[in-house]
Amino acid sequence: MSVTAAQGFRAAGVAAGLKSTGKPDVALVVNDGPEHVAAGVFTSNRVVAAPVVWSRQALSDGVAHAVVLNSGGANACTGPEGFLDTHVTAERTADVLGVSAGDVVVCSTGLIGVRLPMDKLVPGVEAAAASLDPQGGDAAAHAIMTTDTVPKTAVAAGDGWVVGGMAKGAGMLAPGLATMLCVLTTDAVVTAEDADAALRAATARTFDRVDSDGCMSTNDSVVLLSSGASGVRVDADALTTVLTEVCASLARQLVADAEGASHDIAVHVRNASDETAAVAVARAVTRSNLFKAAIFGNDPNWGRVLSAVGTVPPEVAPYDALTLDVSINGVQVCRAGGVGEDRDLVDLASQREVLVEIDLHAGDAEATVWTNDLTHDYVHENSAYSS
Amino acid sequence: MSVTAAQGFRAAGVAAGLKSTGKPDVALVVNDGPEHVAAGVFTSNRVVAAPVVWSRQALSDGVAHAVVLNSGGANACTGPEGFLDTHVTAERTADVLGVSAGDVVVCSTGLIGVRLPMDKLVPGVEAAAASLDPQGGDAAAHAIMTTDTVPKTAVAAGDGWVVGGMAKGAGMLAPGLATMLCVLTTDAVVTAEDADAALRAATARTFDRVDSDGCMSTNDSVVLLSSGASGVRVDADALTTVLTEVCASLARQLVADAEGASHDIAVHVRNASDETAAVAVARAVTRSNLFKAAIFGNDPNWGRVLSAVGTVPPEVAPYDALTLDVSINGVQVCRAGGVGEDRDLVDLASQREVLVEIDLHAGDAEATVWTNDLTHDYVHENSAYSS
Repeated sequence: MSVTAAQGFRAAGVAAGLKSTGKPDVALVVNDGPEHVAAGVFTSNRVVAAPVVWSRQALSDGVAHAVVLNSGGANACTGPEGFLDTHVTAERTADVLGVSAGDVVVCSTGLIGVRLPMDKLVPGVEAAAASLDPQGGDAAAHAIMTTDTVPKTAVAAGDGWVVGGMAKGAGMLAPGLATMLCVLTTDAVVTAEDADAALRAATARTFDRVDSDGCMSTNDSVVLLSSGASGVRVDADALTTVLTEVCASLARQLVADAEGASHDIAVHVRNASDETAAVAVARAVTRSNLFKAAIFGNDPNWGRVLSAVGTVPPEVAPYDALTLDVSINGVQVCRAGGVGEDRDLVDLASQREVLVEIDLHAGDAEATVWTNDLTHDYVHENSAYSS
Repeated sequence: MSVTAAQGFRAAGVAAGLKSTGKPDVALVVNDGPEHVAAGVFTSNRVVAAPVVWSRQALSDGVAHAVVLNSGGANACTGPEGFLDTHVTAERTADVLGVSAGDVVVCSTGLIGVRLPMDKLVPGVEAAAASLDPQGGDAAAHAIMTTDTVPKTAVAAGDGWVVGGMAKGAGMLAPGLATMLCVLTTDAVVTAEDADAALRAATARTFDRVDSDGCMSTNDSVVLLSSGASGVRVDADALTTVLTEVCASLARQLVADAEGASHDIAVHVRNASDETAAVAVARAVTRSNLFKAAIFGNDPNWGRVLSAVGTVPPEVAPYDALTLDVSINGVQVCRAGGVGEDRDLVDLASQREVLVEIDLHAGDAEATVWTNDLTHDYVHENSAYSS
C-alpha cells in the first residue's frame, strides 16, 4: 500500500522512457487533503542536485500538495540548465494538478552530471497524473527503483491514523542521509512544526544509521506529507513513534537490498559515554573495508573491529582500549582488549544476519549502525554501473 | 642496499618459521655507531600493538642501537602476555648484541589477536644476529614482507651522507600512518631533536598522504637510526629534505604494490584555502569506495568525485560548489560544478597511473593524496587472508 495506505492520497508510477530498460521511471504522489502539511530532510552533502535545491525551498513554508519523482537521472551537477529542468517539472506537475508550482516537491535519482530528457519526462508527468489512483502506492514504489532489486514499502498504524512510506536506494547508502529517496504519508492531523520535528527525530535514528558504503549522495531526500484526512490530531511524540517504525522498516529494507551484499551487519555499541560516542564507534566499524571484506569471507576477524574502534578520537568516544569486549554473533571473541573465546565458534556462513556487539565500558549509552559486507558483486556493480 | 646503504649499519633477514610459507620473517637492523641517535613515529590508532607500546618508550630518550622486526604476527590485542613477548624479544636481541634492552626497538606485523610463537622467534633473533652483514639490507627488506609482492627499499644522498630505508605494507594503508613498518638509516651526524623533527616532517607529507583503503593499523611504525659514521653534521632542514625523498619513494612503492590494485590514483587538490583543506578534500575522494570502484571499471565518473568533495565540512575546506573544476588524466570533465569536456575523452584503460585534479578556487594551497582503485582482487585478498 506504500504511500497510499493513509487516507487522502493518490499515487502513480509510469514508464516515461528515462530508463533504457523501459521500466517505470516517473512517480507521482498527491495529497488530496483536507490539509497539506509537509516536511523534508535532505542530504547534508554540499554538492546538491537541482531537485534538492528546489524542494528545500518548496518545503520551507511547511506546505506541499504533491511529490514528483524520477529515476533514470539525478539532475545533479547540471548547472543552471538542470535547475530550470526541475523548475519546469514542478510547473508542469502543478499545472496538471491545478496547484501552485511552489507546492510541488521534486526528487530525482540516477546518473550525476547528465541532463534529464525533458521531452520524455514532461509527458511522463502528464501520464502519471492521468493514472493517479488511491491504490497507486505500489506502482509509485516501483517507479523510483534504480539498482534496487525489490521495491521498499512500509506501513504502521497509530490510534485511528496511519503512516505509509516508500523508499529507494541500494548504493550510495550513507550517513546524513542514506542513499535515498523516501516519501512518507500520513492522514494524522499535525502542525507543520510537529511534522518537521517528528521527521527529523525519526530519520536521525533510522536512515542516518544506515551506512552501506560510506558514500553520501547528492540527492538524498525524505519527504513527509500529511493530509489530516483521519481527523485525528496527534502531537510530535506520537507521530515520531509511528514514523520511526516505518522509517526503521524502510531502512532495514535498504540494507537488505544493498548492491552486491551477502551479509547484513548490525554493529551495536553499548556502555558508551553518550549516544554520539556509540554512533561514532559503530560508524567507524561500518566504514572499515577490511572488516567488511572479512565478513564477506565468513571470517570473524575481530582484530579489524578493534583497529577500526581505535580510530575514533578520545574526545568523541572515551574508552580504555584494554577493557574493550567484542562479540560476533554471540561469541565473545575479544575480552578486555585481548583474545577471548575461540573465533572458530563464530558461525557467519549459515545466515545473512551478522551482529557485532562492542562494549566500551565507559557509560550506559548505546546505538546500532547497519551496514553490509564488501563483496565482489559490490565492486562489479559499482565499476560496471555508472551512477 | 636499503638500510645498509648508510655507513655504520649491518642488517639481516632470516626464516624463523613464523610464516607457514617458510619465507624469511625475522629482520634485524643494527647501528654500529659511533652515534646512536634515533627517532620514531607510530600509528595514531588508540588500539596499539605491544611492540608499539614498547618502542615508543624505548625511543623516548632519542637513543637506539637496533631494530628487530618480525612478520607473521602483529602481537596486537594479545594482553599482558603479548607485551611480555615483546619484552623478551627485546631482551634477547640486546643480549646477543651486548646492548641494553631499552635500546632495542621492536616491530611486528601480521595477524591481530594471536600470540607470537616465541619458541620460533627467539632462535630467529639469534640466527639474525649471527648473520648480520653490512650488505644485509635487502635480506632484511625481504623478511618484513607480508602480502607485499616485492620488497620496498630506497636510498637518497645528501652532501657526503646518505639516507636508506626499507618498508613493508600492502593492506591497511591509511593516514596517520599507512599500514606499515619502515626503518630508515643515515650516517649523518644529527641531534636527537633534529632527527625527531625531520622524521615527523618527512612522514607527514609522504606516508601520511597514502590512503589505500582508509583502514588504520595497530602496528604502524617508522623508525630512524643515525650512526653519524659519515662525520658530516646536518641540521633538521637538510635531513628533512633527503628523508622526505626516501619516504616519498617508499610511500609510492607501497601504493604501487597495494593489495589487488589495478590503478594507482593521485588526487591533487589545488587552490585550497590552506594545506589542511586541500588534504581533507583529497582524502575524502581517496576514501570513496564508489569512486575507487569506478576507476577499476575505467569509468571517469566525476559525479562520484564531486559527491565525495561535498562531504567535507565548510569549516574545514571552504569552497563554492558551483565553481568546482575536476580533471581526470588531463580532461576537464567537470567545469564550474557542472558538465565539462566529454568524459569519453578520458583514457583510464591504457595505463595504471590516474591523476585526478580538483580546483577549489578558494585560495592557493595544494596537496596530493595517493590511493588505489577498489578491485575484485582487493575483496578477494581481504576476505580470504586473515590479517
